[in-house]
Amino acid sequence: MFDKKNLRLYLCTDRALAGGRPLAPLVAAAVAGGVTMVQLREKELNTRDFLEAAHAMRALTRRLCVPLVINDRVDIALAVGADGVHLGGADMPVETARERAGGRLFIGATVRSVSAARAAREAGADYLGVGAMFPTGTKSDTITIGPAALRAIKEAADLPVVGIGGVNARNAASVIAAGADGVAVVSAILSQADALAAARAVRAAVEASIRPGGDSRE
Amino acid sequence: MFDKKNLRLYLCTDRALAGGRPLAPLVAAAVAGGVTMVQLREKELNTRDFLEAAHAMRALTRRLCVPLVINDRVDIALAVGADGVHLGGADMPVETARERAGGRLFIGATVRSVSAARAAREAGADYLGVGAMFPTGTKSDTITIGPAALRAIKEAADLPVVGIGGVNARNAASVIAAGADGVAVVSAILSQADALAAARAVRAAVEASIRPGGDSRE
Repeated sequence: MFDKKNLRLYLCTDRALAGGRPLAPLVAAAVAGGVTMVQLREKELNTRDFLEAAHAMRALTRRLCVPLVINDRVDIALAVGADGVHLGGADMPVETARERAGGRLFIGATVRSVSAARAAREAGADYLGVGAMFPTGTKSDTITIGPAALRAIKEAADLPVVGIGGVNARNAASVIAAGADGVAVVSAILSQADALAAARAVRAAVEASIRPGGDSRE
Repeated sequence: MFDKKNLRLYLCTDRALAGGRPLAPLVAAAVAGGVTMVQLREKELNTRDFLEAAHAMRALTRRLCVPLVINDRVDIALAVGADGVHLGGADMPVETARERAGGRLFIGATVRSVSAARAAREAGADYLGVGAMFPTGTKSDTITIGPAALRAIKEAADLPVVGIGGVNARNAASVIAAGADGVAVVSAILSQADALAAARAVRAAVEASIRPGGDSRE
């Protein structure tokens, strides 16, 4: 059973945005600052190198007590014992991934419409990534749909939802106010000189916006 | 019930040895590298500042899922909800600390003789810190007793034992071979440019030396 609290502050990795710094200490600092789940995204690596990076991130996240999600690759997620897999529009369909993974992985799916959200739910997705919330430098081909679209998706799909794309400490509140269970970030943490302070700032913004009675991690 | 696995790689803080760098990212990197428990040691702070630092370290170690031990101060340990307190020879006696803490804290005691070890056990200590194992730059007033003394103490006291003082990746094996359940380190992690790699190296040395069938954290 997927716990939506994992989505509070969801860090998606991107080596390019880390400015050449090694990922492990950055991830450790980010978790220390309040990151609740980590997604390893490696779009430039071949399978062998991705597998090696995933093994390392599995050991690291286990020590740090946060769930690990692998972007795109169900095979790698299963091989390293990840907790979940995240599927974008160009990745394996949710239904196929569910067949491969059974109950061994939770599945996240990127959607940007109500119809896609309903289809992902029907196919077995455990949570939805919705975005881009705001214009972002992380991906050049994204379409900004904004918090209002997230609200419609949340209401229609009735699944845990995380807002992604251009989210930072200044605008996170509007994503939570639209009904998101958390925010996913890349550059707002990984591109900052002090990843711990950066994570703490985004987490604080999320916590300050969560509805009263919401269940915080601490 | 104190779990001796917490002692595998026990980080004791020392701001001076961190070279002016903030403690939080260093501790996060150290835990990512394999540190299993953290002791906050603040010999230069007044009570108010120590309390504030202890609150911050409590939040940090909770996120990182490692137990927190407060050096010397039972009152501060209880105030911040630490897991344990560590008492040196110039601190509150173990018996008094046990009266104050009841079952709310585990208690570690520094000893360097068999008789002191037995007394600490009688008084209610949960684990023993034994040292200095080797000459060290951390404390100027330490007496080096070496791994052989640790072996005698371990056999006599029958408590979990951690070797401290001058321990690093190169000599940790001899401490474990003498019967220690783990090693406590300061400068071998905090004074290194890459705390994560430094912790990983010490942890690997400990794991490689632990008796077969020993129960590793992962």
